[in-house]
Amino acid sequence: MPIQRLSIIGVGLLGGSIGMAVKSVLSGCEVVGYGHRKETLERAVAVGAIDRGEGDLAKAVEGADLIILCTPVGLLANMLNGISGSVKGGAIVTDVGSTKASVVGDAGKILKGKAAFIGSHPMAGSEKRGVEFARADLFRNALCIMTPTAETDPSVLEQVEAFWRLIGMRTCRMSPEAHDRALAEVSHLPHALAAALVTMQSPEALELAGKGFLDTTRIAGGDGGLWRDIFQDNAPNVRAALARLRGLLDDFERLLDLAKGEELRQWLDAAAARRQALLQEKLREITPD
Amino acid sequence: MPIQRLSIIGVGLLGGSIGMAVKSVLSGCEVVGYGHRKETLERAVAVGAIDRGEGDLAKAVEGADLIILCTPVGLLANMLNGISGSVKGGAIVTDVGSTKASVVGDAGKILKGKAAFIGSHPMAGSEKRGVEFARADLFRNALCIMTPTAETDPSVLEQVEAFWRLIGMRTCRMSPEAHDRALAEVSHLPHALAAALVTMQSPEALELAGKGFLDTTRIAGGDGGLWRDIFQDNAPNVRAALARLRGLLDDFERLLDLAKGEELRQWLDAAAARRQALLQEKLREITPD
Repeated sequence: MPIQRLSIIGVGLLGGSIGMAVKSVLSGCEVVGYGHRKETLERAVAVGAIDRGEGDLAKAVEGADLIILCTPVGLLANMLNGISGSVKGGAIVTDVGSTKASVVGDAGKILKGKAAFIGSHPMAGSEKRGVEFARADLFRNALCIMTPTAETDPSVLEQVEAFWRLIGMRTCRMSPEAHDRALAEVSHLPHALAAALVTMQSPEALELAGKGFLDTTRIAGGDGGLWRDIFQDNAPNVRAALARLRGLLDDFERLLDLAKGEELRQWLDAAAARRQALLQEKLREITPD
Repeated sequence: MPIQRLSIIGVGLLGGSIGMAVKSVLSGCEVVGYGHRKETLERAVAVGAIDRGEGDLAKAVEGADLIILCTPVGLLANMLNGISGSVKGGAIVTDVGSTKASVVGDAGKILKGKAAFIGSHPMAGSEKRGVEFARADLFRNALCIMTPTAETDPSVLEQVEAFWRLIGMRTCRMSPEAHDRALAEVSHLPHALAAALVTMQSPEALELAGKGFLDTTRIAGGDGGLWRDIFQDNAPNVRAALARLRGLLDDFERLLDLAKGEELRQWLDAAAARRQALLQEKLREITPD
């Protein structure tokens, strides 16, 4: 797919970084950014994230070959409705949301017969927000999860995968439902836990917080509104993950009995070994041969 | 206190780093290291952590002005019994354990009339073990918590505080019981949570783990035996902290209801703001004026 016009809907950290990355590798592609605040669009142009800003959603996608929705998860259905009447024939639409089943379902209905949709989840970002933190290399070596369904046109999937690879990402494929189950475990529940850990501290305990505590709770620094959307959209999976965690905390508490010392050591060592193996695997993944 | 001989009981990451730090700032102080493995002592001498190794505990503390116990928490009572017959009059004993009430109580009984004891908890370290990871600057700018009791001689407290400051630490004071309560919240429970988070992951979820998950679970990489000792020694406080966390997770789950979106956002934003304030405070603390 030769992309001559790319529309980025929502020019924050992720949208802005996509624009910068595209402009660093593709020449002859116009990058149009949509946002509802004029100042944000002007800043996005100034930092080189987009070529031009557009405050009208329908106009922002006119003539675009690829449209990437980069708004908070809770706004994606609105955005799909807002663009469905003005996408050009043959256009491909994707998104960068942290939950996938609902947006894939919505897009299937809203864009039916108008444009092709494939869900993407580029796993990059930071607890910072806004185009002023955007970077052309934000996505480099990170994983982008593609979530095709039985209805997905394989060539659309391949074209969007090729796009993410073009800006330096690795890609993998899984169903929207499997994605949401896995992300509840590895991302959404950990965020809630980090928030709970910060909240439960007495002032005396917080005084003593060291580097370990700051690392453990780093992800709790994210924006509450964005995360509220994610939790609401993925609530059943988050509840299931929370139930599994509660079971493990019950196990841990039982092992605090003095007589269970050897079992407790094994439980802790097994977790340490699993994390160590994960770390080695991740280091291999992001280290080019 | 002019320290002419320092005895370090247990020459691992912490003990070795204390030795290196002392040798970098004090001349004319002999650093003796005790360990039960000859190779460890030889390595400690080779990397410059101690001047000489001693495999006999009683001999290792002979003539020492300051004795620092750096063994795992579960071995501290044994070590106190092992040195009590051979400490010189006027010697000061301290330790580096992560729990304080039990060692302070044990030392009060075991060293009574023989040597002065004050509990210390230098909050530095890493998930790595062994003298090969020791560094002279491990303690620089980190906090050392002193845990005096009503029986503590103020001049002993001041001398040991001066020692930790000499190797670059900041110091604060609290009772052994307050220390153990606070550490259960800010350190021990977070470790158990990190271990539970790693353990609960399905293989599919673990495949998708990113930098956030690795940060959140970094502290789970520690040694199971060391942490087993800490959890057993501080079990009542860890159970109390766990109960508070469970209450917050129940709150979080209730806020997943669609109708509670605004409350959920506030709950998440409050945690993010509290962590941000903590980060700013910690950055101020470790940044010299």
